[in-house]
Amino acid sequence: MRSTKTYHVRAQLQADYEVVCTDNILDPASDELVGRGRQPGTHAQRRFIVLDQAVDAIYGNSIRAYFEHHRVECRYLVLPGGEQRKVMDSVVAVAAALDSFGIDRRREPVISIGGGVLLDLVGVATTLYRRGIPHLRVPTTLIGLVDAAIGVKTGVNHGCHKNRLGTFQSPTAVLLDRRFLASLDERHLRNGAAEMIKLAIVRDERLFELLEEDGDRLVEERFQGRSPAGERVASEVLHRSVRGMLAELEPNLWERELDRLVDFGHSVGPAIEMLAGGDLLHGESVAIDMAVFTTVAAHRGLLDDKAARRIIELLHRFALPTDHALLDEEVAGRALADTVRHRDGRQRLPVPTGIGKAVFLNDVTQDELRSALRHNRAEAIS
Amino acid sequence: MRSTKTYHVRAQLQADYEVVCTDNILDPASDELVGRGRQPGTHAQRRFIVLDQAVDAIYGNSIRAYFEHHRVECRYLVLPGGEQRKVMDSVVAVAAALDSFGIDRRREPVISIGGGVLLDLVGVATTLYRRGIPHLRVPTTLIGLVDAAIGVKTGVNHGCHKNRLGTFQSPTAVLLDRRFLASLDERHLRNGAAEMIKLAIVRDERLFELLEEDGDRLVEERFQGRSPAGERVASEVLHRSVRGMLAELEPNLWERELDRLVDFGHSVGPAIEMLAGGDLLHGESVAIDMAVFTTVAAHRGLLDDKAARRIIELLHRFALPTDHALLDEEVAGRALADTVRHRDGRQRLPVPTGIGKAVFLNDVTQDELRSALRHNRAEAIS
Ligand SMILES: NC(=O)c1ccc[n+]([C@@H]2O[C@H](COP(=O)([O-])OP(=O)(O)OC[C@H]3O[C@@H](n4cnc5c(N)ncnc54)[C@H](O)[C@@H]3O)[C@@H](O)[C@H]2O)c1
Ligand SMILES: NC(=O)c1ccc[n+]([C@@H]2O[C@H](COP(=O)([O-])OP(=O)(O)OC[C@H]3O[C@@H](n4cnc5c(N)ncnc54)[C@H](O)[C@@H]3O)[C@@H](O)[C@H]2O)c1
Repeated sequence: MRSTKTYHVRAQLQADYEVVCTDNILDPASDELVGRGRQPGTHAQRRFIVLDQAVDAIYGNSIRAYFEHHRVECRYLVLPGGEQRKVMDSVVAVAAALDSFGIDRRREPVISIGGGVLLDLVGVATTLYRRGIPHLRVPTTLIGLVDAAIGVKTGVNHGCHKNRLGTFQSPTAVLLDRRFLASLDERHLRNGAAEMIKLAIVRDERLFELLEEDGDRLVEERFQGRSPAGERVASEVLHRSVRGMLAELEPNLWERELDRLVDFGHSVGPAIEMLAGGDLLHGESVAIDMAVFTTVAAHRGLLDDKAARRIIELLHRFALPTDHALLDEEVAGRALADTVRHRDGRQRLPVPTGIGKAVFLNDVTQDELRSALRHNRAEAIS
Repeated sequence: MRSTKTYHVRAQLQADYEVVCTDNILDPASDELVGRGRQPGTHAQRRFIVLDQAVDAIYGNSIRAYFEHHRVECRYLVLPGGEQRKVMDSVVAVAAALDSFGIDRRREPVISIGGGVLLDLVGVATTLYRRGIPHLRVPTTLIGLVDAAIGVKTGVNHGCHKNRLGTFQSPTAVLLDRRFLASLDERHLRNGAAEMIKLAIVRDERLFELLEEDGDRLVEERFQGRSPAGERVASEVLHRSVRGMLAELEPNLWERELDRLVDFGHSVGPAIEMLAGGDLLHGESVAIDMAVFTTVAAHRGLLDDKAARRIIELLHRFALPTDHALLDEEVAGRALADTVRHRDGRQRLPVPTGIGKAVFLNDVTQDELRSALRHNRAEAIS
């Protein structure tokens, strides 16, 4: 090795998974839940199932009946939802339970059924365990259905930082069944709507209009389609959201490219969410962030006042916040600095230039942040 | 979503990195260490450097002088080596230090300089942190140079399981400088030789012969080439080892294929290593495992007695163990069962069929294990 010699290592990894919109996955007649991810040639079926505690309370019996019907030997691990438990300790606890189950590396996909918190942390655990075991995701919240479950990001919080530790995971499959939303409380429905509104603003004007027109009905009917009109619109907004999200994610699954439209709402939002502790839900912090940068865009003249007003009004229609007591100029400045570290030295701030259109800004000043914050606070109070 | 609708997500991830065999990387005239992984257009240079404690004691001054010469602002984190510290808590400690440094997601590759333990755990930390930040690896032990540093596997131990939590990481680059071996103690040199012997047995007869002929000199000269003949052989065995390892890894970087020749020595070895606590080093457990399955192959008549004897003798020449008091039939059986879970339901045991040749077995019985263990114990005692 006296002289320099270089070996070049090159290889390609394929991500390949299906996001299946289906119905009644707990109906014993369906084999989506038990059939997906199974290796051919496996006889005795075993599954390790991680359940959100609230989901277990409501759907636990049906879930157990489903797997009993299919003669699958199951081990259940029930974990509480909520952001506070989204930490590395929970990941290690899942790993310990996988050990005691003696899970197979390839043949026994872990099934997680719950909200974004559960899916994110089981995602970390299943990517780390034996450097990756299969993971079938079943979201039960709106944020899970339209966002957390369908992409490749997993994560847990660390210190005061949101999702600071995480992985990219190509899931075995994602099964979307909006029936679960029937039991979700209104605040969490509105919370999930924030991510739909995000997509609508940056890329889908029609989705925006549907949410403007039928938002109340959607929340009231919990996306269950209790009327024919409600059914039509619930189906359309969910499909548009999922399709739009995947269209944004797929060409940039591992975030090589850091100019990401779906980062709208996620520039100072995550920092406020962590700062507010349990006080703000994820989608609520996204809403506040969207309001900030909508106002920045309006103040720059990139977005006309009418469109800016429509955006803020839609957030309010969904009872989403556009300001928070803890969000001052200094907090926003610090959060933005961390975001710049995350985006390779540039701000890359998506801001709307109309309904369904956005651009990236890289030169937003502290002054602009300050006046946007002041403006939004005044509006929120008035 | 009443009717089933399926979205298909497909994408490709490219792994692409260089393993550079170089010399004197701490010479201020070299810019390998500071130039690799830097993003173009970055001005002020900062680096977060994780050092093995023993390495810091010996090379700390030169390392600091190197970075001062290059005007790089550095933060050093010094961690003790040794298997006991290869746990998730250490990973979280690294993450906390990265937070306090405020590391950039793309522009400031973490540099780790140390043995396999350090590289493995910093590998986990840098894959998890912000879902992956660049990592430049500089191995300082033989096992690091020929194995741990050059592939994509990272890991920490969990419970009684070796590397139970880990990731696949494509490093920024790997810099190999065998000068570091000058200070490595003999036991760790022999330990690293075990992984070279492994490669020699399964795929490189010439490497095997070189180790037979010049093993003593290599260890004595610590691969530094203190004589012209020593130089020639040190260079050849290191190159053959690195080249051979990469040739095995590259076509199967993420272990889609589970019939892996490099798993020779890693079927029951890891379990014995964990069971023996600090008593056995990694390469020592690999040696014991190789001895077991060499004997299994010989007893089956797959390997002639002469070749089997040469293998066992080479291990002994390097003062590597071929048996351990804790290794009994029951332990071996349990370890093998766990390995089967890791290898998708089959044993996939690489066993030598000659020097430089191997096949996979899937039907090794408990009886065969027992008689191989007995045979090796008798040989080790006699
Ligand atoms: N990975 C990603 O790409 C991604 C994307 C967006 C959001 N997220 C993450 O998702 C998390 C938020 O997800 P969330 O809002 O689902 O939180 P959550 O998982 O905590 O669920 C919210 C609450 O609803 C309960 N619950 C879940 N399903 C229910 C049901 N069907 N009926 C009644 N109650 C139910 C839970 O127990 C919990 O109390 C955040 O941590 C966020 O960072 C991740
Ligand atoms: N990731 C992989 O593909 C892979 C492959 C093989 C082994 N490994 C892992 O590597 C680990 C073993 O590596 P290791 O043997 O290097 O252990 P190690 O990192 O603990 O180093 C061994 C000892 O040598 C000291 N040391 C390191 N460099 C030195 C130097 N130049 N001079 C003097 N002392 C020095 C360390 O402080 C430590 O005490 C195991 O945990 C094993 O699982 C990983």
